[in-house]
Amino acid sequence: MTSPSPLPHPPELTTLPEWQAFVSATGQTHRHAEMLRILPAASLHIDVSAQPLSPALDQAASDLLTVRGFEQAREALFAGLPVNVTEQRAAWHTMLRAPAPIAEVVQARQHMLDFVHRADTERRWRNIVHIGIGGSDWGVRLAVAAFGNTGVWRQIRFVSNIDGHAIEGGLAGLDPHQTLVVVASKSFATAETLENARRALEWMRAADVPHPEQQLVAITAQPQRAQDFGVPSAHIFPFWEWVGGRFSLWSSVSLSAALTVGTDVISGMQAGAAAMDQHFLQAPPVSNAPVQMALAGIANRSVLGYGSLNLAVYDSRLFYLVPYLQQLEMESLGKSVDIGGQAVQVATGPAVWGMPGTDAQHTFFQWLHQGSDGAPTDFIVCQHADHRWPGHHQQLLAHCLAQREALLRGKSYEDALTEAHTLAPDDPQRQAWLAQHKTHTGGRPSSLIVLPRLSPYTLGALLALYEHKIFVQALIWGINPFDQWGVEFGKNLASRILQEWAGATPAAEHDASTRHWIDTLS
Amino acid sequence: MTSPSPLPHPPELTTLPEWQAFVSATGQTHRHAEMLRILPAASLHIDVSAQPLSPALDQAASDLLTVRGFEQAREALFAGLPVNVTEQRAAWHTMLRAPAPIAEVVQARQHMLDFVHRADTERRWRNIVHIGIGGSDWGVRLAVAAFGNTGVWRQIRFVSNIDGHAIEGGLAGLDPHQTLVVVASKSFATAETLENARRALEWMRAADVPHPEQQLVAITAQPQRAQDFGVPSAHIFPFWEWVGGRFSLWSSVSLSAALTVGTDVISGMQAGAAAMDQHFLQAPPVSNAPVQMALAGIANRSVLGYGSLNLAVYDSRLFYLVPYLQQLEMESLGKSVDIGGQAVQVATGPAVWGMPGTDAQHTFFQWLHQGSDGAPTDFIVCQHADHRWPGHHQQLLAHCLAQREALLRGKSYEDALTEAHTLAPDDPQRQAWLAQHKTHTGGRPSSLIVLPRLSPYTLGALLALYEHKIFVQALIWGINPFDQWGVEFGKNLASRILQEWAGATPAAEHDASTRHWIDTLS
Repeated sequence: MTSPSPLPHPPELTTLPEWQAFVSATGQTHRHAEMLRILPAASLHIDVSAQPLSPALDQAASDLLTVRGFEQAREALFAGLPVNVTEQRAAWHTMLRAPAPIAEVVQARQHMLDFVHRADTERRWRNIVHIGIGGSDWGVRLAVAAFGNTGVWRQIRFVSNIDGHAIEGGLAGLDPHQTLVVVASKSFATAETLENARRALEWMRAADVPHPEQQLVAITAQPQRAQDFGVPSAHIFPFWEWVGGRFSLWSSVSLSAALTVGTDVISGMQAGAAAMDQHFLQAPPVSNAPVQMALAGIANRSVLGYGSLNLAVYDSRLFYLVPYLQQLEMESLGKSVDIGGQAVQVATGPAVWGMPGTDAQHTFFQWLHQGSDGAPTDFIVCQHADHRWPGHHQQLLAHCLAQREALLRGKSYEDALTEAHTLAPDDPQRQAWLAQHKTHTGGRPSSLIVLPRLSPYTLGALLALYEHKIFVQALIWGINPFDQWGVEFGKNLASRILQEWAGATPAAEHDASTRHWIDTLS
Repeated sequence: MTSPSPLPHPPELTTLPEWQAFVSATGQTHRHAEMLRILPAASLHIDVSAQPLSPALDQAASDLLTVRGFEQAREALFAGLPVNVTEQRAAWHTMLRAPAPIAEVVQARQHMLDFVHRADTERRWRNIVHIGIGGSDWGVRLAVAAFGNTGVWRQIRFVSNIDGHAIEGGLAGLDPHQTLVVVASKSFATAETLENARRALEWMRAADVPHPEQQLVAITAQPQRAQDFGVPSAHIFPFWEWVGGRFSLWSSVSLSAALTVGTDVISGMQAGAAAMDQHFLQAPPVSNAPVQMALAGIANRSVLGYGSLNLAVYDSRLFYLVPYLQQLEMESLGKSVDIGGQAVQVATGPAVWGMPGTDAQHTFFQWLHQGSDGAPTDFIVCQHADHRWPGHHQQLLAHCLAQREALLRGKSYEDALTEAHTLAPDDPQRQAWLAQHKTHTGGRPSSLIVLPRLSPYTLGALLALYEHKIFVQALIWGINPFDQWGVEFGKNLASRILQEWAGATPAAEHDASTRHWIDTLS
């Protein structure tokens, strides 16, 4: 095998005796949260007490991490070695938030600070239109929604989708003379992003903006393409080949957030993420929060058979945390072939979905409590709020703790029967029948992540926690979390359909249904 | 059994020979979309060609529907009989959109029209603050986001979460003198909604609004409670006991949308839903769109073992369709006990999640293409757009068709090997290895729902399509889709924690972790 992997290709997971021991130990655990395991990490507390836990499982997990080369892999990640073996690249996002980064990172940070400082000093750009998609979009949305309530004088709009209603709505009502258009695309070839940027340019030209290109900014690893597009070179911010799209919030992609909610938000998030990096590097496995969450993720998915992971985010400012983490986890772990090229014989990454609580309680918690499967749930909550109604925050905290408790303990038939007495006081037969409908299985695993308060620092730490959790899961499964071959395939088929519509190529082979719609919708 | 069920309790599903035949026929299908099945319904086209299909499966499905009493159940639903047997109520949302409804519905519609007409004529209320959660929230958000780009002069804010940041952000920057506060709660006892309404009242009082109660509107099935809260009786709109929260968009809950995007939107949605009702009532099973989608849902979930359903909504205006349908499906089908009180021996309702495409392609489609499981996907797209860039819409359509095609056909190792030549031209070993990473399983089932254009009519039809699909799935599984006992349990535990914090009750029994956090966060 000639791939320049910094690590040997791992054997398929299920061939390992250490995996068999892990499976066996997991099977003997009971989720009851009587053995406390609450891990402090970068000012957060991560409680995994309601996950599969036992001393035997700790031992099996430790052996599994050892045989998978955990320490060497972690070292390779932080050293910027090409851990993304299929694409022969590093995945060095940790360098972007390092306290003493390499020179080119320092320079890029300074470039961004200078740009924001100058724009602020000159009170330029009332409006930011941020154009990017996926990894060039969710992180900025997340940071702005999380911290946008503190003294904003610029407004920001996001345009990601190729759907023309997105750019139409994104530009509507803005003064083109007062608008900065930030175009974020690693390749500067993302179809959605370039099309939308062209519409924004046309919109400025139509309003007789004297130098529309001067109102463009590009964030890209392909500066030449940005220049060809017309972006002035002083407005081009770097995005390195060794930064994956889903990790790019740590790069210059955060410029739009810096312009909207301030550069302190960005530096604060970087500091929090760097603190979590140190925790991940230093804490022994049994008290290492990303490692413990990863082990729970593996046990729940590959041993207990849960197909999805629910994110119950008890903070309405973190609405975009769900799509952010969906991308981070599902794009990273949505692989079923290991690094050696063999099909992994257990189920890998789960579907990740969720919603802020308490909204989620009124949307799908019914399913979590009484559905066939349920889902392991990550509860995320802040100890302190930033508003002036302590009663609201008490209720929020109580709901978060109570839902987790309810999922764990369940409700027995006997308890349900007691309740049913009041619903049908004179009808024991109906009481018994209603009680069957009111029982809850219980035993649903969960984690609880407590932030002291929502701040750039704690949000940064939270994002890095998930990054490293995902890294460890990938390591154990033996998959590469840093590529995304599946993103290209559909794009290529879309190009072929567009070419057919343009009459440029002979009609390709399609299934009958696709053929029908190509003909009908053309 | 003394429950006043309009229909006999069904036997547990797996005991039926008709179910065994359905399982066996499903197992022999191949998803290849070569047999076209495209169903017109209320101006939509629903393509189920890429779902499990075969003449044998049609026969088995027909027998299964018959033994489950499909025709009688559908009749009972539309007749307003108490199909919600555990709560002894009808689920008569179809009456709310019937062309010739009962007198009380006519009267409520007129009340709403008069209210909006008067507010519009007098140019009152620049701002609407809509306070509600779950079923009292998502539908209004959906309608406003879908149609809010057409000549709005009022702005609307939504406040749902108990998190105080929600009401803080919801009120920020509004003129209290120009604001109408709409409080939607069936019980008028929803903790989140009443707390948030109190904050809104305080906010108006603090600004010396002369008659803050005159700026309140209530939508509720408990008018006395609303009056006790201070809402003037002329501002109380009905919400009947026979309308479930997740179906309440068809009731007066749509008032806030009517004030924001116009009453035509509401009447248009009702007309579209009514047309889908007629389709559901009249079309034979094999060409009945809700029935065909339900059968696919059952086959995918209970036979093929898919744990979740992905909604790929190729229209950026329909962002809120995902949470709306999440609630509709997961609250309805998140049950594992059948109407008779027995555990259903197959998996019932899936996790429902999704995102508008093309954003979704850059977020989690990697997982759909190359993850271990994948998920059946409902693709939803409009044939015609309402913006002025046909090229954008062509690309959107092409992506939608291409992703569906890619999920269905997959990419063979041989095709991947051809591609890999260009990535590693001189290294056959690396080519073979990369090809293993670039293959796609394929065979993922999907539906394609094509709306001629996004309009109130087509959106109404789409929502009713899912309502009836869910009804049929519940019927086959034998579960009650209209109760939600699991929503109450966590609420009760939350009250207990709040009482403990208030010192009012002796500390209850909790697991060690919950105990720890009750003590730490108090």
